[in-house]
Amino acid sequence: MRRRRGCGTLCAVQVREFRDGDWPQVWAIVREVVRARETFPYDPGMTEAQGRATWIETPPGLTVVAVDGDRVLGTAKTGPNRAGPGGHVSTASFMVAAPERGRGVGTALLRHAVDRAAADGYAAMQFNAVVETNESAVALYRRHGFEVVGTVPRAFEHPTRGRVGLHVMYREFGAR
Amino acid sequence: MRRRRGCGTLCAVQVREFRDGDWPQVWAIVREVVRARETFPYDPGMTEAQGRATWIETPPGLTVVAVDGDRVLGTAKTGPNRAGPGGHVSTASFMVAAPERGRGVGTALLRHAVDRAAADGYAAMQFNAVVETNESAVALYRRHGFEVVGTVPRAFEHPTRGRVGLHVMYREFGAR
Repeated sequence: MRRRRGCGTLCAVQVREFRDGDWPQVWAIVREVVRARETFPYDPGMTEAQGRATWIETPPGLTVVAVDGDRVLGTAKTGPNRAGPGGHVSTASFMVAAPERGRGVGTALLRHAVDRAAADGYAAMQFNAVVETNESAVALYRRHGFEVVGTVPRAFEHPTRGRVGLHVMYREFGAR
Repeated sequence: MRRRRGCGTLCAVQVREFRDGDWPQVWAIVREVVRARETFPYDPGMTEAQGRATWIETPPGLTVVAVDGDRVLGTAKTGPNRAGPGGHVSTASFMVAAPERGRGVGTALLRHAVDRAAADGYAAMQFNAVVETNESAVALYRRHGFEVVGTVPRAFEHPTRGRVGLHVMYREFGAR
């Protein structure tokens, strides 16, 4: 990730709730990410309808977009990681459009997700399947207080790196 | 778990594919287990329809029952743990009727699930959320070659033990 002093281009990035009209741009991002098969354990052949069902959350979940004006730069979805006795832990997923990576969009989305989850009363956030070769994501999460709880070996078939591990990462909100 | 020499009552236990007529007995087990809030991060207030949608798998997933004649003693569901690049790892969940615990029903279901997943070509099996205080399940999985990859601390609200950890457990099928 390129580092900037001051505000830079990131000033233009706003995170807001997903609206129906965002879908074509969100689907372009989701489709590119799942077809790349490098970072998400999703079906790379998912249809647009399946993509929408997968990515667009209903309450208590939430889907947001990072925008620069009308342009969608990235998207996140958040919600409870599990039900019932596991419902106090949140989860989140993030995707950034390929041309927009490295300008802080993921950081803006992550901060928004963590702030929202803490404000909603969740005790923690868990990522269930962070591909260990997705170094920018792992580094981003570590910078924001997430730790690797464990790594499931060889659980993700990367198109060029072979079978790589999936990290479970976790952060509690008590000591922010 | 009580240990038996020889065959004992376990001889009568057979594991077979779920049939529609099993549902009333399966739902009685699922309802009891989720209402107890001790072992599954499921909504304890789930309706029968939600229970059915949660527990009864469609292909490539599979739901089975352990039966003694017409009596359902326990049930399991299996399938891919994740999609796409994560699709070579299976997962499974097990529930045993309270009066039938300790006679090997869980063992029969686990063996069936592992054998089936290996025969279906999966490379491994992963349990995503094993409640660490569910000692009989943890011990059963360990006896069958599963290891704790990591434990998410305080991720499960147990009704009497407070917030306890959830183990991620994993076994590869290469070295059976």
